[in-house]
Amino acid sequence: MRSLYNRLAGQNIERLAALSDGVFAVAMTLLVLDLRAPAAEAVHSERELLHALVTLAPRLVPYVMSFLTLGIFWLGQQAQLDRLAKSDRDLAWLHVGFLCVVCLVPFSTALLSEFLTFRTALIVYWLNILLLGIALLATWSHAVRAKLVREDTTRDIVGAICRRIVIAQTLYAIGAALCIISTYWSIAFIVLIQINYALAPSWPSLRRSG
Amino acid sequence: MRSLYNRLAGQNIERLAALSDGVFAVAMTLLVLDLRAPAAEAVHSERELLHALVTLAPRLVPYVMSFLTLGIFWLGQQAQLDRLAKSDRDLAWLHVGFLCVVCLVPFSTALLSEFLTFRTALIVYWLNILLLGIALLATWSHAVRAKLVREDTTRDIVGAICRRIVIAQTLYAIGAALCIISTYWSIAFIVLIQINYALAPSWPSLRRSG
Amino acid sequence: MRSLYNRLAGQNIERLAALSDGVFAVAMTLLVLDLRAPAAEAVHSERELLHALVTLAPRLVPYVMSFLTLGIFWLGQQAQLDRLAKSDRDLAWLHVGFLCVVCLVPFSTALLSEFLTFRTALIVYWLNILLLGIALLATWSHAVRAKLVREDTTRDIVGAICRRIVIAQTLYAIGAALCIISTYWSIAFIVLIQINYALAPSWPSLRRSG
Amino acid sequence: MRSLYNRLAGQNIERLAALSDGVFAVAMTLLVLDLRAPAAEAVHSERELLHALVTLAPRLVPYVMSFLTLGIFWLGQQAQLDRLAKSDRDLAWLHVGFLCVVCLVPFSTALLSEFLTFRTALIVYWLNILLLGIALLATWSHAVRAKLVREDTTRDIVGAICRRIVIAQTLYAIGAALCIISTYWSIAFIVLIQINYALAPSWPSLRRSG
Repeated sequence: MRSLYNRLAGQNIERLAALSDGVFAVAMTLLVLDLRAPAAEAVHSERELLHALVTLAPRLVPYVMSFLTLGIFWLGQQAQLDRLAKSDRDLAWLHVGFLCVVCLVPFSTALLSEFLTFRTALIVYWLNILLLGIALLATWSHAVRAKLVREDTTRDIVGAICRRIVIAQTLYAIGAALCIISTYWSIAFIVLIQINYALAPSWPSLRRSG
Repeated sequence: MRSLYNRLAGQNIERLAALSDGVFAVAMTLLVLDLRAPAAEAVHSERELLHALVTLAPRLVPYVMSFLTLGIFWLGQQAQLDRLAKSDRDLAWLHVGFLCVVCLVPFSTALLSEFLTFRTALIVYWLNILLLGIALLATWSHAVRAKLVREDTTRDIVGAICRRIVIAQTLYAIGAALCIISTYWSIAFIVLIQINYALAPSWPSLRRSG
Repeated sequence: MRSLYNRLAGQNIERLAALSDGVFAVAMTLLVLDLRAPAAEAVHSERELLHALVTLAPRLVPYVMSFLTLGIFWLGQQAQLDRLAKSDRDLAWLHVGFLCVVCLVPFSTALLSEFLTFRTALIVYWLNILLLGIALLATWSHAVRAKLVREDTTRDIVGAICRRIVIAQTLYAIGAALCIISTYWSIAFIVLIQINYALAPSWPSLRRSG
Repeated sequence: MRSLYNRLAGQNIERLAALSDGVFAVAMTLLVLDLRAPAAEAVHSERELLHALVTLAPRLVPYVMSFLTLGIFWLGQQAQLDRLAKSDRDLAWLHVGFLCVVCLVPFSTALLSEFLTFRTALIVYWLNILLLGIALLATWSHAVRAKLVREDTTRDIVGAICRRIVIAQTLYAIGAALCIISTYWSIAFIVLIQINYALAPSWPSLRRSG
């Protein structure tokens, strides 16, 4: 039996969705702060400005990668919330925990932008993605267990969402492990996974994986 | 009797909720700005980067603590707004006042991050939580007094929401007082209170307190 | 006759409201960035931290003043949008222009925080408030002229909204003029006007003014 | 045939609209960060403050220009989303890609603010506008091709939206090319195009172009 207050709080799915959209929107926009325009004092000609921008260009890679990350997890939580018939306080808190990890993405992106060739920076970035996956899976598991999902949510759908997260996280872990060779391999592999999920091509092997 | 203009303004609960979600989303995301990636010039090896990150780690405590604070008060105001059948200008202004205090959380968090062992920083942080509680209680009292709440809001519900705020604030005050021993005791105690409210375990003693 | 494209764009009042709520939420939260926590290197004792915070305290005045400003104009535009039955492209653009001025508030607040005793800073702040009023009045005039307002919007309501803006702006102009004596007089007067509008007391003389 | 998961995700147009409003709101508000209040240490008299503000004034041009840019593309995507009867995952991803380019606007604006007379900065700014146009056109083309648009969307409307983007982009490209003479010519021309689209005057020649 839950206390009275706890039965009042966290039941509004629309508000939870609005908070999420806000957090994702700000996190996405903060990513650009890593792309700092060069200072006017350091640049005296078109050539120097071009040179400064070329030096800045590698930072576009973590920017786009993090935008893909945030895009993937925004779609993930949107697909989940759309499946809910109602919410409860625990689900709201699990979701807030998820958002707490989302807010870390600008930090781990800034770290990776600054230290593209450092394994430590890449592992921190991967840990962030891992936590995102765990939080999403925990929210979904709770929603299914507490029967918050819509009635038309078949076992197939429940399974597809779980499998999707587990397979994606496995691929991300492989990507992170590639940093034994080089962080560039890791980054390239992770971006490829993300583009695959964004473009969602109809590869037979991946289609079956949900 | 209110003037004509004053009867026109502040009546849209959905807009008030949307503004709140926006303010909470930005405040939550600004918290991460205290976690600054170390500068590339100061770090020359994986070991130095790891060391820099370990030095940064204590800042995760105020980050998570403030995320819990914002989460608790987001749920609090959401539960309140959900109870309203209509709004008026005074309620809108009380709520804007509440948001004004919410926006201070990134500041008091930054202060505590920078001065974890300073009692002054902890007292400022606690004052912020206290103001959040007062603002929430004032909004709720006005809503009840001005009969803005939904008809199915029983006296039990009105009381449960009031008691919840008062008990939580009492616990926070005890937590703040613990800084006489050490700010670490205060922080640990406050985080425990917050986790208790987030997890909402079914402890008999706490359940009765609403 | 409008072109086809122009009849498609800018008709969604809900989206316009959502954009506004977002802009106001971010502008409100950016205000706190003027309250910078003192640097750890400059502070070595509780007493020094307390001293640094006392030095910071005057910045709370522009913070609260700008929060009141944003609150007043948020309520103003919300009351207006609530009165609309439909929107058109011109109204959307006038509203975007209004938001463009809203986004300047964090700048003029930062300027005033930094230069509390400088008349130039105060005049810039007042110009910002003036532009907010003009933009709001222009939007409302267009809405009335283009018959976008709801049918139950009597001439009394149209007039009350216009008068409200004109009277408030007259008071703000008087407040700004007081900087001939001292900027403190101006700030005190403007804050008093704002608190008057926020609390909306039932003073006979002000009630009649709508 | 799409996999099960891919049929679940990205179908909520309201959430996509809310995410967009958030991103635009934050991007608009971040623009003001280029208008930094002068530091108190560098200013000792009213005259010096006035001088510092006059020096800052040219930065208002890129600020207003970027606000117009964001306003134009906010209206553009709003008009498109309003035309959709449903969404799918590909549309959601194309829209997220569009938002990724929107988030770059504060960067390219900061660059142009800092280097108003540099062709490189202007070309970067124009590339940003070009990418916005391409992303919008790609989203619209996909929506039409995948039959996501509302049934009352005639061929005329489909054509009007496409033509609008192509003509606007042609004008922007001409504006960018004018930087061969001077970046001031480019900026003036681009601002004129934007004001034309914002004011949407009934010039016969432009009306026909949709």
